Amino acid sequence: MSVAVTRASTRPAAGSSSGESGSEARLLAELERLRTRVDAALERWLPKCGFGPGRIHEAMRYSLFAGGKRLRPALALLACELLGGRERDALPVACAFEVIHTYSLIHDDLPAMDDDDFRRGKPSSHKQFGEAMAILAGDGLLTFAFELVTRTPAAERIPALVREVAVAAGTLGMVGGQVLDLDATATSGGTAALLEEIHLRKTAAMILGSARAGGVAAGGAASDLAALGRYGKHLGLAFQIADDLLDVEGATEQLGKTAGKDAQAGKLTYPALFGLAASRREARSHVEAAQAALSRFGDRADRLRALAAYVVSRTH
Amino acid sequence: MSVAVTRASTRPAAGSSSGESGSEARLLAELERLRTRVDAALERWLPKCGFGPGRIHEAMRYSLFAGGKRLRPALALLACELLGGRERDALPVACAFEVIHTYSLIHDDLPAMDDDDFRRGKPSSHKQFGEAMAILAGDGLLTFAFELVTRTPAAERIPALVREVAVAAGTLGMVGGQVLDLDATATSGGTAALLEEIHLRKTAAMILGSARAGGVAAGGAASDLAALGRYGKHLGLAFQIADDLLDVEGATEQLGKTAGKDAQAGKLTYPALFGLAASRREARSHVEAAQAALSRFGDRADRLRALAAYVVSRTH
Repeated sequence: MSVAVTRASTRPAAGSSSGESGSEARLLAELERLRTRVDAALERWLPKCGFGPGRIHEAMRYSLFAGGKRLRPALALLACELLGGRERDALPVACAFEVIHTYSLIHDDLPAMDDDDFRRGKPSSHKQFGEAMAILAGDGLLTFAFELVTRTPAAERIPALVREVAVAAGTLGMVGGQVLDLDATATSGGTAALLEEIHLRKTAAMILGSARAGGVAAGGAASDLAALGRYGKHLGLAFQIADDLLDVEGATEQLGKTAGKDAQAGKLTYPALFGLAASRREARSHVEAAQAALSRFGDRADRLRALAAYVVSRTH
Repeated sequence: MSVAVTRASTRPAAGSSSGESGSEARLLAELERLRTRVDAALERWLPKCGFGPGRIHEAMRYSLFAGGKRLRPALALLACELLGGRERDALPVACAFEVIHTYSLIHDDLPAMDDDDFRRGKPSSHKQFGEAMAILAGDGLLTFAFELVTRTPAAERIPALVREVAVAAGTLGMVGGQVLDLDATATSGGTAALLEEIHLRKTAAMILGSARAGGVAAGGAASDLAALGRYGKHLGLAFQIADDLLDVEGATEQLGKTAGKDAQAGKLTYPALFGLAASRREARSHVEAAQAALSRFGDRADRLRALAAYVVSRTH
């Protein structure tokens, strides 16, 4: 769950040609457009601060509108469009993935978990609102995410969408990865296989779930959903490795959260296990696998391909 | 969220005739039958301890199978039958309510919340598995509850069922009630209106949600669902007052959790605000209102009426 914000960058991707750099600029503009759409929907759908027991809505909004780049919703929206769906078909489930991602960051930062006082450059939820409220804000967001899914216009697709979200976020996905991560911190005998399982569950499950859910919202065929799932899986693995690299390379100010925490905590990470150079190679190899998974879609999947390249361009 | 286990009792309800006592015996037999059905379904559907990141499934099962009397699922199943549905129509959403109730108890017991070391006579989740795992077990249960709802045989009813569960458990329901409860503990100027709002959200929302969801699973008409909602609302209020009375009157051993905690914590409760006698009267008045809400159903709702009477029979 400890994934850093995807930061915009004017620096071209490593090894990129000027054409790739132009494609990255177009991608960033597209991501910005999608972010605006997602933020407007979240603003509209999330209960207002003054409504009901308002303090919890304030806490939920504090974390939800803290500057996240909305990678997961963007994936859902792009995947939906790729399979011929409309934006409004995927918007509710796209928002649901972001809401769940946000809850996971709040609970992840709690003293009993990663104990982090900063998130996206601001005090983390429990520092701002107290620990009890942070627990409840996370619970409230997780619950609300499923209410959001029921806003999907095509009601007959809602059961499958609820399952996509629940499986991605549940004990075989994100929550399960967090459990394995706790154990991997406590014990020292981590293996590459365990590390990949942690990354698959903790990070890739939500990213592949977002891509698949976008396809489900479009009424996509099983074979197309499977291709989106393979894309999302490799993208998620690349993303987590890039994130671990940033934790080693980045400064706290850039990250918006405490840097170097992984090494301090003796966490099992790619850089810790294989070193920086091999980790960078591994991340690039997952980007290539993600792009290859999209071959059936031809040029229409170029933005999803560019997104995969962009994820690793964050690392040196 | 701090609702005690409904305990079986051989003592007749206060002021009951022998006829009512016989009806209570029949009710207890029926509740036992429903409990067995619900436990079998939960056992079948919940991921096994050895599956995936197994330790979290162990923690989830530890709390889920700690001897709860399955009041919420029983309500859903009885309401479904009342409106002509089959048991299997309501079983998934009935289990979902119990799973959510269980997660709420785990998070409620955390040191940052009510800080209780015992639950149902056993160490609470965070004492048994550690705080991080207790947070994640709660998150895992909450997520899994929505996956459960998608097992409902009539797929076209799943969106409405997901909404019933999310609204009952969310920030306008259970989680919102817990937020208000935190504040009411911290401040001393609690009013009767605030107290009723806390009870409505914290306890009644899930109980009325269970009853309504059972009706939705049966494909019930809006007017029947509204009647079930009124019944559940008053039942929930009666239940919470009875629970607060038990906290004053009961011993820790009987309750399976620490007794007298409300007074120690300076909590806003009916007994603290109105005294024991007035609280008992208020509970009975809600039982009568709950029973009156069922008038349109005639004799067919007798078991739901008996259930309402039983809830307050727990108090002296």
